[in-house]
Amino acid sequence: MNQDSRHFVEELQALKDRLLTMGGLAEERLRRAVRGLVERDPVALADVIAGDTRIDSLQIEIDDRCFKLIALYQPVAVDLRTIVSSLKINSDLERVGDLAVNVGEAAQRYLLHPPVKPLIDLPRMGELAMKMLRESLDAFVDRDVGLAQGVLSQDDWLDAFKGQVFRELLTYMLSNPTTIEPSVDLILISRHLERVGDHATNIAEDVIFLVEARDVRHRSGPYPVVERRKERGALPI
Amino acid sequence: MNQDSRHFVEELQALKDRLLTMGGLAEERLRRAVRGLVERDPVALADVIAGDTRIDSLQIEIDDRCFKLIALYQPVAVDLRTIVSSLKINSDLERVGDLAVNVGEAAQRYLLHPPVKPLIDLPRMGELAMKMLRESLDAFVDRDVGLAQGVLSQDDWLDAFKGQVFRELLTYMLSNPTTIEPSVDLILISRHLERVGDHATNIAEDVIFLVEARDVRHRSGPYPVVERRKERGALPI
Repeated sequence: MNQDSRHFVEELQALKDRLLTMGGLAEERLRRAVRGLVERDPVALADVIAGDTRIDSLQIEIDDRCFKLIALYQPVAVDLRTIVSSLKINSDLERVGDLAVNVGEAAQRYLLHPPVKPLIDLPRMGELAMKMLRESLDAFVDRDVGLAQGVLSQDDWLDAFKGQVFRELLTYMLSNPTTIEPSVDLILISRHLERVGDHATNIAEDVIFLVEARDVRHRSGPYPVVERRKERGALPI
Repeated sequence: MNQDSRHFVEELQALKDRLLTMGGLAEERLRRAVRGLVERDPVALADVIAGDTRIDSLQIEIDDRCFKLIALYQPVAVDLRTIVSSLKINSDLERVGDLAVNVGEAAQRYLLHPPVKPLIDLPRMGELAMKMLRESLDAFVDRDVGLAQGVLSQDDWLDAFKGQVFRELLTYMLSNPTTIEPSVDLILISRHLERVGDHATNIAEDVIFLVEARDVRHRSGPYPVVERRKERGALPI
């Protein structure tokens, strides 16, 4: 390995480390938002909504690193795909940070009303979404296709949670109009959490593309939605 | 200009053409979804939900073109930024296509109930979001920073529409519980349309980054939210 390629390997590792750090920060924001909702903690929510300058500056740094790696080392094949995937994952993680803010804002409005019900499904949904996010990033760093496929198979669970949350809140809203406004915010939160899962799914698809150099999006490959639905086993949390 | 760089310029133009085509298709799907909602046309909605294989295959083709351009020509500076921006815009446009499906699905559920009210604000919101999308793509192709800034300044209008839609529907829900379920779907549709505007904003920010090689995200530059809000003039549609 010459000096140039050793540098490249080191730089690539530094890039992956940054992505993991960013993923950890995004997850932390989301956890804080969901906990602030469940524990009715306005201080935690205000903190989430204020944003995290570390995420913002990491996002810019990661984009910058990717550009420089492409320009300086002119990578091809799997190295180039890794860097382009990093750019995409960087966007996904930024959006997860934004979604944490969206959850925080909806939770803040929710806190203006008496509690509609004890919140059980939403925190479970949040845990599942964060687990998917974590696993998708681990799959990226370790190029672990099996783990990435596992993430894809969990997405239907989020969908099931979302439907359950909606149906339950609908009964509250129908029986007591004062619950309508806060219930809508809980429904919106369930959608935000579902979207965190969508970003984890994006990352998992990138991993499969990266490792196997094939595009699992929009193709009837080994993971069509129908099969994934059939395979859904015990809830993974 | 040697043969290599002439080929590169041609390939870059072909890439931009594909992005414009994809943007046009995504916009068409969204327009069809909103029209299907307003005109209560289940056939149009089913068509939107079925998806568009042209968008799917274009997305894969555009990613592929970007990879090949980087690997074959090893571009630097503004050329590299153009290609990386294309990859990001490609993702944004794919999401707009997904959002058209989301609108179609919510509209399909809405059609199961009698109309809550005449729909005025939602189609206007849709038109504004599509206009922003179109202008952001034109700004990309022409490297027009002024046009990109114009897109950013319109985002607050979408936000204002969203708030208006929510408040109006809340009064319906509070006075008549049979409107709760369909009203929630209209609220979700307003959120989907807002997100189309978010993607247009992403593209506009990419254009500014591309042309001026500076990152307007998360920086207190010439376009902080407060100033944009102050500058909001007449509704641009």
